[in-house]
Amino acid sequence: MDPDQVAKAFVEHYYSTFDANRAGLANLYQDGSMLTFEGQKTQGSQNIVAKLIALPFQQCKHLITTVDCQPSGPAGGMLVFVSGNLQLAGEQHALKFSQILLSTTAVSCYL
Amino acid sequence: MDPDQVAKAFVEHYYSTFDANRAGLANLYQDGSMLTFEGQKTQGSQNIVAKLIALPFQQCKHLITTVDCQPSGPAGGMLVFVSGNLQLAGEQHALKFSQILLSTTAVSCYL
Repeated sequence: MDPDQVAKAFVEHYYSTFDANRAGLANLYQDGSMLTFEGQKTQGSQNIVAKLIALPFQQCKHLITTVDCQPSGPAGGMLVFVSGNLQLAGEQHALKFSQILLSTTAVSCYL
Repeated sequence: MDPDQVAKAFVEHYYSTFDANRAGLANLYQDGSMLTFEGQKTQGSQNIVAKLIALPFQQCKHLITTVDCQPSGPAGGMLVFVSGNLQLAGEQHALKFSQILLSTTAVSCYL
């Protein structure tokens, strides 16, 4: 499978899970995972999911604009850069967002 | 040295080199390095620098807004997310830019 297609499929999976059920993101992080959100670092799958659930908005929809990916490291890992719009329930204007997803091992197992 | 300070120093070094002498960036990339620029992939230090030199603007100045960093991998590597404004000579309005810099090994040797 083309790495760009894997990246796109993973990104779609990540954000559809984020928008539908943030707790489900726990499976996509590990104990060694780190999230930096607006400069604040959070480590570990459970802490990351708790942080994402506690964000000051409930219903949201991510609309993806760009997905760029590169191979990363010897173990089939991938670096993915995502940008797009974040539409919050009840808000007229979408927010711009960008996020980096870095996997040090192959992510195809998630698809 | 604090990883955030290392990241900021590296970012300052990267963009001051970019703005003053793009050819000097060759030392910061390796043969296995990859650049994805607006969806187009370029591999190898010399090719990356040739791509950056060929960008359709000469004089520019990067103004950094945010630098977020995380450790990456077992070899002291770092993932850095940079956002800011790119001021081009003769242009009234700055462009927004964001870039990811990923090192799989310690970058302190560059500082």
